Amino acid sequence: MTFDLSRDHAKNLDEADELNSYRGKFFQPDADLVYMDGNSLGRLPLRTVERVERVVVEEWGSKLIRSWGANWFNAPIEVGEKIALLVGADKGQVAVSDSTSVNLFKLSMAALNLRPERGKIVTDSLNFPSDLYILQGCSRVLGGKHTIHLIPSADDIRVETQAVMDAIDVNTALVTLSHVVFKSGYMYAAQAITTHAHKMGALVLWDLSHAVGAVSVELDRWGADFAVGCTYKYLNGGPGAPAFLYVRHDLQNETLSPLWGWFGERAPFNFELDYVPAEGISRFMCSSPPILSLLAMEMGVDMVLEAGMDRIRKRSIQLTSYLIDLYDAVLAPLGFSLGSPREAEQRGSHISIRHPEGYRINRALIEEMNVIPDFRDPDNIRLGLSPLYTSFQDVWEAVERIRQVMTEKRYYHYPATRLTIT
Amino acid sequence: MTFDLSRDHAKNLDEADELNSYRGKFFQPDADLVYMDGNSLGRLPLRTVERVERVVVEEWGSKLIRSWGANWFNAPIEVGEKIALLVGADKGQVAVSDSTSVNLFKLSMAALNLRPERGKIVTDSLNFPSDLYILQGCSRVLGGKHTIHLIPSADDIRVETQAVMDAIDVNTALVTLSHVVFKSGYMYAAQAITTHAHKMGALVLWDLSHAVGAVSVELDRWGADFAVGCTYKYLNGGPGAPAFLYVRHDLQNETLSPLWGWFGERAPFNFELDYVPAEGISRFMCSSPPILSLLAMEMGVDMVLEAGMDRIRKRSIQLTSYLIDLYDAVLAPLGFSLGSPREAEQRGSHISIRHPEGYRINRALIEEMNVIPDFRDPDNIRLGLSPLYTSFQDVWEAVERIRQVMTEKRYYHYPATRLTIT
Repeated sequence: MTFDLSRDHAKNLDEADELNSYRGKFFQPDADLVYMDGNSLGRLPLRTVERVERVVVEEWGSKLIRSWGANWFNAPIEVGEKIALLVGADKGQVAVSDSTSVNLFKLSMAALNLRPERGKIVTDSLNFPSDLYILQGCSRVLGGKHTIHLIPSADDIRVETQAVMDAIDVNTALVTLSHVVFKSGYMYAAQAITTHAHKMGALVLWDLSHAVGAVSVELDRWGADFAVGCTYKYLNGGPGAPAFLYVRHDLQNETLSPLWGWFGERAPFNFELDYVPAEGISRFMCSSPPILSLLAMEMGVDMVLEAGMDRIRKRSIQLTSYLIDLYDAVLAPLGFSLGSPREAEQRGSHISIRHPEGYRINRALIEEMNVIPDFRDPDNIRLGLSPLYTSFQDVWEAVERIRQVMTEKRYYHYPATRLTIT
Repeated sequence: MTFDLSRDHAKNLDEADELNSYRGKFFQPDADLVYMDGNSLGRLPLRTVERVERVVVEEWGSKLIRSWGANWFNAPIEVGEKIALLVGADKGQVAVSDSTSVNLFKLSMAALNLRPERGKIVTDSLNFPSDLYILQGCSRVLGGKHTIHLIPSADDIRVETQAVMDAIDVNTALVTLSHVVFKSGYMYAAQAITTHAHKMGALVLWDLSHAVGAVSVELDRWGADFAVGCTYKYLNGGPGAPAFLYVRHDLQNETLSPLWGWFGERAPFNFELDYVPAEGISRFMCSSPPILSLLAMEMGVDMVLEAGMDRIRKRSIQLTSYLIDLYDAVLAPLGFSLGSPREAEQRGSHISIRHPEGYRINRALIEEMNVIPDFRDPDNIRLGLSPLYTSFQDVWEAVERIRQVMTEKRYYHYPATRLTIT
């Protein structure tokens, strides 16, 4: 493979792609920037600029409090119903609310409450640390009666489905995993795990943060009990945009959130003194959502809906496969190893490439090469391929610039110690 | 009092007021609108429009993920420190986080955890229902061991300080009240109650939602243990803008939030698998805040800081006193009663006027008179006087239009049953 050929090939791939026009619907003031971090913060959709201005000036500025009745109050459910279409959920099961972590707390507590006689929570060491922290917090709140079983990963890339199944026993109350894991992009066989967990009497909660908008999620078909997810990655919802939660229909009225806020109350504007939970998914909401962030986020969700998950997933696989091909040809010989599954059906939409000098290489890419990936300990450079705007040419450019960093030894002058934001 | 005289008087009061220029710093496209609901949703500061556009286009759109390190990650603490100046808190005790209800849950759980041997929570029937719901939820999570003592109010306006003190006993773990109550605007003698509660060994949590930006709050001087508050009322932070929390310095490292999210972790970007709480106020944060809503809100906080709480409180008292004068002259003879304290030191910045037909009168005001108050059961029309933009002429106009509704019987054709948003 020569690079000249490669670039043309990338260009041809872009031109042939049916989603190619979506790239132009995002704000991209720096044409040279190769943005590979859409798995952390998605790009700004152009329509969001206009929408936010309208929310601020017209809905808040002009209509003021009247906007709550007009369209704000129902927005968490309405936008939730849109997200439902992306995660294979029938109506009445998804709401926008709080943050992923707060939702995980609410639903984990609800799940543990449904299995009071069971003391084990099953998760894995690949899960996003904040998820583990929330579970540890739940365990403490509940008096330390629960053990959190952390399934290890031999290669820091994956946990085999069988290992998850083996960890689930008749004492397991809750199995909770990231559908697509944050470092390697490994994707669990969600249906098989859910089915097995149910056989053992356990409940299952999926964190869809790295999955929604990138891969096929079929919560109803899987028979999932609970799910949470964030909206600022592949949904391009904006920094810290509110998260969503899913509770399977038949579980909703059997359990409660521990956070009894007025947005989860039967009739919040009756201002009754005693909490009576709303029927259905609303009871898992808590309080007034951040409207600017919520309605900005809706624009990103709309675009994903328009593009369609089938086409998005298809393009994601093409992008990640192309990157793996380039990795094999260009990066493996330079001392990188692949930190993500080669099997398309086992991965999400980001690829980790590993290198002992990963931290310094990542810094050089950002500071000298106008490439933005991100770095995750101990040696992962994550390259997020966001199907709506990452182009094949972006992938080609990213690999080419990584090659330059390596051959020109541009990372040598960065300190090996990480700068952490604390 | 004749109305002609009154209107001139209102105009003179406006022109003489040292904060009069602030009115022009808010977006007001409808000059005829008399907006009396700033105690529910504050108006849009002009500078917020520009700020939000910059956050969206420059910080999100152009700088993308780099903005987290540049200014987003520290924003919850930095904006928290600004709010600290408005609530009499020394550095390191206030953070922006989540919603008021979620913060109330976190800090109530933290407080109850500090008094494990005590089983009583003291609050009152005037508290915002969502606060009561959260306390009921805490009690359930903790196994139902706690009783919630709801101090009644004889007149639905106030609870005497002595009645609060009498309710606090040696079994009381937590006293939590709204500093300014949502219906009547009654303001508690916070320092006296806090001091007494401490004598009894109880902890005190103030909800400052209707107080911050309107009245003098001196958390450190009161010796308060915890506080929460919202930012979209008198701080004009925007719909559903994130809330804040306060934990007294010496309590911070003794207790924990039940919500162990990564923003409360010692070193979130180390991605350790076991939660180690951050030192100080950060441990009470949970996860990525909604940046658009947060940075929009900062603009409102800045304006309050510039205007200065002393001047704001002075103007608030003048506005509410003027409204009570007009009430006595105009509204009392029309069958209204006053639902707020006459004593300036016992009230916040909104005034409730009560009428058996309050619900229908409120609707007529909104739908026919271009006046926006709000209605709270059973008979309260709340008139919020937001010191930075409500003018004396607004107050005059509101009273005059209420008078017209009554004398022209404009409310007769509205149904008496409330429309509730459910």
